[in-house]
Amino acid sequence: MQRLACVSFLTDYGQADGFVAACHGVLMRLAPTIRVIDITHQIPPQRIRRGAAVLAQTVPWLPPAVHVAVVDPGVGTARRAIAIGAGDEEQGSVLVGPDNGLLSWAWSVLGGVRSAVALENRAYQLPAVSATFHGRDIFAPVAAHVASGIPLDELGPPIDPATLVHLPKPESRTSDGAVEADIVSIDGFGNVQVAATLDELSQAGLKPGDDVVIEAAGVTFPALVSYTFADAAPGTLAVLQDSAGYAAIVVNGGSAAAVLNVRDTDSVALCIRAEPGGNPIGVSIDRP
Amino acid sequence: MQRLACVSFLTDYGQADGFVAACHGVLMRLAPTIRVIDITHQIPPQRIRRGAAVLAQTVPWLPPAVHVAVVDPGVGTARRAIAIGAGDEEQGSVLVGPDNGLLSWAWSVLGGVRSAVALENRAYQLPAVSATFHGRDIFAPVAAHVASGIPLDELGPPIDPATLVHLPKPESRTSDGAVEADIVSIDGFGNVQVAATLDELSQAGLKPGDDVVIEAAGVTFPALVSYTFADAAPGTLAVLQDSAGYAAIVVNGGSAAAVLNVRDTDSVALCIRAEPGGNPIGVSIDRP
Amino acid sequence: MQRLACVSFLTDYGQADGFVAACHGVLMRLAPTIRVIDITHQIPPQRIRRGAAVLAQTVPWLPPAVHVAVVDPGVGTARRAIAIGAGDEEQGSVLVGPDNGLLSWAWSVLGGVRSAVALENRAYQLPAVSATFHGRDIFAPVAAHVASGIPLDELGPPIDPATLVHLPKPESRTSDGAVEADIVSIDGFGNVQVAATLDELSQAGLKPGDDVVIEAAGVTFPALVSYTFADAAPGTLAVLQDSAGYAAIVVNGGSAAAVLNVRDTDSVALCIRAEPGGNPIGVSIDRP
Repeated sequence: MQRLACVSFLTDYGQADGFVAACHGVLMRLAPTIRVIDITHQIPPQRIRRGAAVLAQTVPWLPPAVHVAVVDPGVGTARRAIAIGAGDEEQGSVLVGPDNGLLSWAWSVLGGVRSAVALENRAYQLPAVSATFHGRDIFAPVAAHVASGIPLDELGPPIDPATLVHLPKPESRTSDGAVEADIVSIDGFGNVQVAATLDELSQAGLKPGDDVVIEAAGVTFPALVSYTFADAAPGTLAVLQDSAGYAAIVVNGGSAAAVLNVRDTDSVALCIRAEPGGNPIGVSIDRP
Repeated sequence: MQRLACVSFLTDYGQADGFVAACHGVLMRLAPTIRVIDITHQIPPQRIRRGAAVLAQTVPWLPPAVHVAVVDPGVGTARRAIAIGAGDEEQGSVLVGPDNGLLSWAWSVLGGVRSAVALENRAYQLPAVSATFHGRDIFAPVAAHVASGIPLDELGPPIDPATLVHLPKPESRTSDGAVEADIVSIDGFGNVQVAATLDELSQAGLKPGDDVVIEAAGVTFPALVSYTFADAAPGTLAVLQDSAGYAAIVVNGGSAAAVLNVRDTDSVALCIRAEPGGNPIGVSIDRP
Repeated sequence: MQRLACVSFLTDYGQADGFVAACHGVLMRLAPTIRVIDITHQIPPQRIRRGAAVLAQTVPWLPPAVHVAVVDPGVGTARRAIAIGAGDEEQGSVLVGPDNGLLSWAWSVLGGVRSAVALENRAYQLPAVSATFHGRDIFAPVAAHVASGIPLDELGPPIDPATLVHLPKPESRTSDGAVEADIVSIDGFGNVQVAATLDELSQAGLKPGDDVVIEAAGVTFPALVSYTFADAAPGTLAVLQDSAGYAAIVVNGGSAAAVLNVRDTDSVALCIRAEPGGNPIGVSIDRP
């Protein structure tokens, strides 16, 4: 196995405690030259879906790495701890974390599962494994060993990829004049990313410059299909292509999630559809 | 003195300003190859006890390092600035910061004070020392010099370890069927760590699976002695062994500190005692 | 062009998403040995002036570096993307970001503009440039290339420095017994930094130990000119020299911005003037 110079790290540990640093310390003791990129440690506690979305949308921009992700409501239970070789053998990365779906969107964007193992070989973990902090005791030391060149099949028995936990992928449904799309993620600014592309909007007849309405939980809001934040008047809703290639509903200088009254859940879909009468561009939505 | 490849850094500076980065800059200018692990910069302002707890519980997982910690209400006053050699000469670490007790729990876990000096030699500090930012002007440059191999006795005159400021250590009192324990720390999720171990609970007759009551400021709450977060029903209190080896009172998916209405203070103790009648496991505590 | 070993990074991206990490990934892929110092990513969204103040007050403490700063309400519009060579050719640093004034206070403290270019050469940017995330697609790759030794004039056509956007500099007006000064910045603790020095206060007859009044929006508050936070009684206002050399209005253990009811705006000035009758030192301001 090649060595990997980089470990990335995503958790819901927050940054008010020493938890992230303890993991960094374990990494640095076992792999002194490794470089760590912290993706974020502010995933809301136990929100696996949010962690999966941030991980999958960030790893394409990182160097080949061991990506460690820990959003793990089942820590200490029988849920499996896993390492996944993803993508091409030569250029590939490794994902390390709990088998609860958190890693599943990331291995898709990295080229699919090449190999999967259960982290059962205690030789590559800390001597004492706590019931509550597998990031420090299992995932960080495993990542350090993998980055140092230990092959995956040393870490534990192989897993049938068909048995891995997958998160359902968000979907979109396009019809003439409307796109209904699941919410993928809501970022720290309240931009609401949905599972559709501007191409799909275009196929439904919705193009930049068009006025549309967005329906969320039965309530409709006027919006503008746009290119940039600055195209929309301050405080108004716009639909644009975000930096991950998805359509995102945004408010110039505000939170679209607050305006639409949506949260990052599995069950919510939004509908973007043409407004035949048309709205004045940049109509204010700051009203009761 | 050996060189140390790592500097750890803990403060109450927050991350909204450039204060932490200025210290990183000073470190990198003076010790270009040094690696920095930020423990946290979100210690609540001037909360020495909270800083001491996070520092002492994180340093055991870090490589040998110069640990710089700054929670320093007395900056600019006559309080001493100190460097402490801790533990074994060969493997030991160095602690750098104000002499206000912040470092005292850390030097205990690192093996005790081997040597102590007052940081009075201005040659190892920035040319101009401000009255308000000793992290940048004194502690960071001293840490860079120590990491580069400057012996402690170059930094200033020796201090009698008996004169160092110690924080009182939290204590526990075990009796038949009950453990009363000081609060050590409350983490960012509201988990309440107390100065007792599961062994002490066991000596008092309280074992995983047992229903107990927790008394805080005269109010009692039902709880379950447990192994993992997931053993307790969502929203209910549990007592488990945390990743630092202490007993912690937690809520699966919530904040125990909020439920118990406790804050991180020096004066609060909790009592965990058997509930002879027993409570149904996982009884909801979400009631008036 | 010399190589630079360090890239500093300041944005309003927050740390809840993967945006900062994506930029780190681009940097590490293109310049694997570069060291990154994150100044802060918690500039309030689109607050250019706040970003400019933090940047200018932090860069003097960093090693020679490529300083990347992105607070960019105009991303995706016709605003220019720029790189600025600042200060001395041998020791100088480079600033990279949008041409909206964000960099202008920093190039002043670094010694002025030596050269300026518009980032129009797509060869040094990512192959696909999004409309919303120039930090990842333009500024990070340009910074990596500059750090690796690409000369500025390869990045795009030269700009006449006279055409660069400058933020107006905050000013002070000193008279006998009074200093009126614009607010420069308000830090994460609510300390209010104003565009005056203790020397200017001294010229106006206001010296450490003096009681003064601070007038903000027509309301006056008693304060003490002081050396350190600890000189003022807890909860009371003090004026001291902060770590950037400015006068700052602070509250020992509290937020001066909250007490004075000021926010970080372009238009606010405070007046500090002598209180002829004198106030008792450390008079409590915790009253209606």
